[in-house]
Amino acid sequence: MSAERTTAAAGAGGGAGDTYDVIVLGGGPTGENLADRAHAAGLSAVLVEHELVGGECSYWACMPSKALLRPAAARDGARRVAGAEGAVTGPLDAPAVLARRDAFAAHWRDEGQVRWLDGAGIDLVRGRGRLAGPRRVVVDGGRTLTARHAVAVCTGSRPVLPDVPGLAAARPWTSREATSAKEVPGHLVVVGGGVVGVEMATAWRALGAEVTLLVRGDGLLPRMEPFAGELVAASLREAGVDVRTGTGVREVRRAADGGPVTVVPDPGPEVTADELLIATGRAPRTEDLGLETVGLTPGDWLAVDDTLRVTGVPGGWLYAAGDVNHRALLTHQGKYQARIAGAAIAARALGRPVLGSDRWGAHSASADHHAVPQVVFTDPEAAAVGLTAAEAERAGRRIRVVDHDLGAVAGASLYADGYRGRARMVVDLDREVLLGATFVGPGVGELLHSATVAVAGEVPLARLWHAVPSYPTISEIWLRLLETYRGD
Amino acid sequence: MSAERTTAAAGAGGGAGDTYDVIVLGGGPTGENLADRAHAAGLSAVLVEHELVGGECSYWACMPSKALLRPAAARDGARRVAGAEGAVTGPLDAPAVLARRDAFAAHWRDEGQVRWLDGAGIDLVRGRGRLAGPRRVVVDGGRTLTARHAVAVCTGSRPVLPDVPGLAAARPWTSREATSAKEVPGHLVVVGGGVVGVEMATAWRALGAEVTLLVRGDGLLPRMEPFAGELVAASLREAGVDVRTGTGVREVRRAADGGPVTVVPDPGPEVTADELLIATGRAPRTEDLGLETVGLTPGDWLAVDDTLRVTGVPGGWLYAAGDVNHRALLTHQGKYQARIAGAAIAARALGRPVLGSDRWGAHSASADHHAVPQVVFTDPEAAAVGLTAAEAERAGRRIRVVDHDLGAVAGASLYADGYRGRARMVVDLDREVLLGATFVGPGVGELLHSATVAVAGEVPLARLWHAVPSYPTISEIWLRLLETYRGD
Repeated sequence: MSAERTTAAAGAGGGAGDTYDVIVLGGGPTGENLADRAHAAGLSAVLVEHELVGGECSYWACMPSKALLRPAAARDGARRVAGAEGAVTGPLDAPAVLARRDAFAAHWRDEGQVRWLDGAGIDLVRGRGRLAGPRRVVVDGGRTLTARHAVAVCTGSRPVLPDVPGLAAARPWTSREATSAKEVPGHLVVVGGGVVGVEMATAWRALGAEVTLLVRGDGLLPRMEPFAGELVAASLREAGVDVRTGTGVREVRRAADGGPVTVVPDPGPEVTADELLIATGRAPRTEDLGLETVGLTPGDWLAVDDTLRVTGVPGGWLYAAGDVNHRALLTHQGKYQARIAGAAIAARALGRPVLGSDRWGAHSASADHHAVPQVVFTDPEAAAVGLTAAEAERAGRRIRVVDHDLGAVAGASLYADGYRGRARMVVDLDREVLLGATFVGPGVGELLHSATVAVAGEVPLARLWHAVPSYPTISEIWLRLLETYRGD
Repeated sequence: MSAERTTAAAGAGGGAGDTYDVIVLGGGPTGENLADRAHAAGLSAVLVEHELVGGECSYWACMPSKALLRPAAARDGARRVAGAEGAVTGPLDAPAVLARRDAFAAHWRDEGQVRWLDGAGIDLVRGRGRLAGPRRVVVDGGRTLTARHAVAVCTGSRPVLPDVPGLAAARPWTSREATSAKEVPGHLVVVGGGVVGVEMATAWRALGAEVTLLVRGDGLLPRMEPFAGELVAASLREAGVDVRTGTGVREVRRAADGGPVTVVPDPGPEVTADELLIATGRAPRTEDLGLETVGLTPGDWLAVDDTLRVTGVPGGWLYAAGDVNHRALLTHQGKYQARIAGAAIAARALGRPVLGSDRWGAHSASADHHAVPQVVFTDPEAAAVGLTAAEAERAGRRIRVVDHDLGAVAGASLYADGYRGRARMVVDLDREVLLGATFVGPGVGELLHSATVAVAGEVPLARLWHAVPSYPTISEIWLRLLETYRGD
């Protein structure tokens, strides 16, 4: 592929007719990984990005949110163990937490990411890229890029504001402002009980804000097993958060010159606060991508096959990975899709067999269907992979649900006094493999990957019986779940 | 099996001719689990124990040692995160740590364990049981028990004092005293760099003791990958422990009426301390079991097949599980063997097929050979499963060793500022599965089970590529290791 590498180098020099093997729209983790995979396979690749290279995750999502959450989790870990508890006397140092967060967000500068691209041999074009017919991308200012093999849309998603009177004018926070705020609000109203809502309620409450959490549905974390949201809600309430489920927002008021924001819940009394975070949903960043030039509809999510190729595009040159395809709106899953898509693009470009229809094959993002993991860094942590019981039932699987108290495990009781948590596994009775698992409790975040390996690996339960958990770790919950399943 | 249950009930009433399906010698976790497995399969079972029911693990090993270690780990977790660090102002409250430890050791009372036995329908005979020929056990005082199907030796192991002048007279601590001491010694000398030595050096140093650690070999934790011992040694030294490797003990002196103990290292200057812990090795508790009455040698480890049946005993009625068979001296592995042995005994008793030669079958303790996990609760934690690189090479496997800096993973850097750690996987190149994995760093204890599932499940590396680690967790080390293996 040396010729193409040369082409890529020439392309880096500018000009209206730059040609690359692969053009990637969007320089977040998904786009970076896709370009890197393609380049590692010998293809030339260019990334087009009009904001910061590194994307949402690096600056306004995963990294800053976890940086905001970790200090409280670390402190609370010590507070929950007699003998260490007394050593923890002070509150969190909010300015220090925010400064640490700033560092993890690279101070919202992307030099480090650009250096990584340079080192990886991937070109960068700054500006907004739009499709202009098949395999062609026009970047702001008129520069035109042509893809020899593929264009990949990795532009992600953006928060959506619901249609509530006064809301837009009240300049609410979205996930961006919630993760990058420079000071702790005195009172924060959070609307939305999904991951962003509960993580940000947790973080800002721990940093000293008064927090009101308004959730339209019956509970928090509705995509997980119900006990996840129940345990997190109980803990938020204990921490002093005013959690109101079954509550929408009727109206929002804020003076044009700023000042406090008043939220009128539905039902319930008004709340006046310093800031309002809306975390109720996301939309694909596809409005302004020129999708109409290739027969697609701007603003739509992009449907893809398991090689991440957009369906219904003649020639099969258009791919979409990450949030924008709506398969799983998670950074790690976008990166996974990027690895698969990069490999599939390279295989097609090089005339090699493409194993897109092989379940768990090198070119099939099978995990999107079977083994999507997620850790919510609340207190307690909520970690899940695969199908919930309800999802498995809806899918018509013959299942057995096995629950166990996590606090009954020796490793958990050693980890924290009065440990509260719960675990569930969902067993496929026809194949005797795990369809899903959920762990909710302090310190379960790293435990999840054992379930992810079991689900993605389709390890039979009879073999899991030989996967001995080390004593005394929280992982011994596995033994308890398996014993319960066997009816012991 | 109702007839046998009746027999068991009659047996509980006492008498010289008590007959049970299964007699278990030793009431630690291994014995308890073996009896429970057999009983759950419909057999009658009796446990013979002359000390506390619950065994070494409950009172003088896993539980109290982890209870001693956890408070420091929890406090240090908070200390390592800017923003939480300042909230940690005091030292550990040693009396509170010791009181918590006492609670985890059930105050060295076994009522709770006895209640569990009662609930499980297992009889208990207190006293020292000795074999008196095939299937026969005589308990202190003359009571004789007869086993219809099996006798299982689950008596564990005991610390061994090396042959050093003056040592025995100096009344050194063993693991028992080190885990149950009622106050923090001013200065503790620890001899031995294995798990007990490094964990107790870590715990007592954190509780305020001056600690000197003498290790005959080149490094600590010699059964793990070398970097485990290196990272733990560096951390112990930073914590102020005087770690001396390549150092034996020439002589020990202590006045008959107590007072300080003087240790003469070889080589090196004398050390005078309050207490001396010897943690250099263990021997099977088989000296006083009447092994000679069934053709075996008292004091030997008991060799077993994969169903945990002692080899070379006519009739095949004698089993040995746990430390005493020398396969893997770990509580969780003893419990695993107990589950396997209990199932094998029941299958044989009930005339069902015994799958002892089926690798990973229900009656084969295959994990003992392939997937023994261990977490060392030092700072950093050291967690490993399966073969080290050196072990795999000695076994003649064609392997590739893949290393990665754990601190380079986003989840690790979020977990602790200045995170230091390392990970290794050992790949079987012929089958492209994992033979072993090692993680060393703060917070890796729960991460290990992912590797245990992968090793015991023999999940192909190509499939592990689909086991997506949740971002940003420390588990993302999996992605880095797999990428490195693929040469990306």
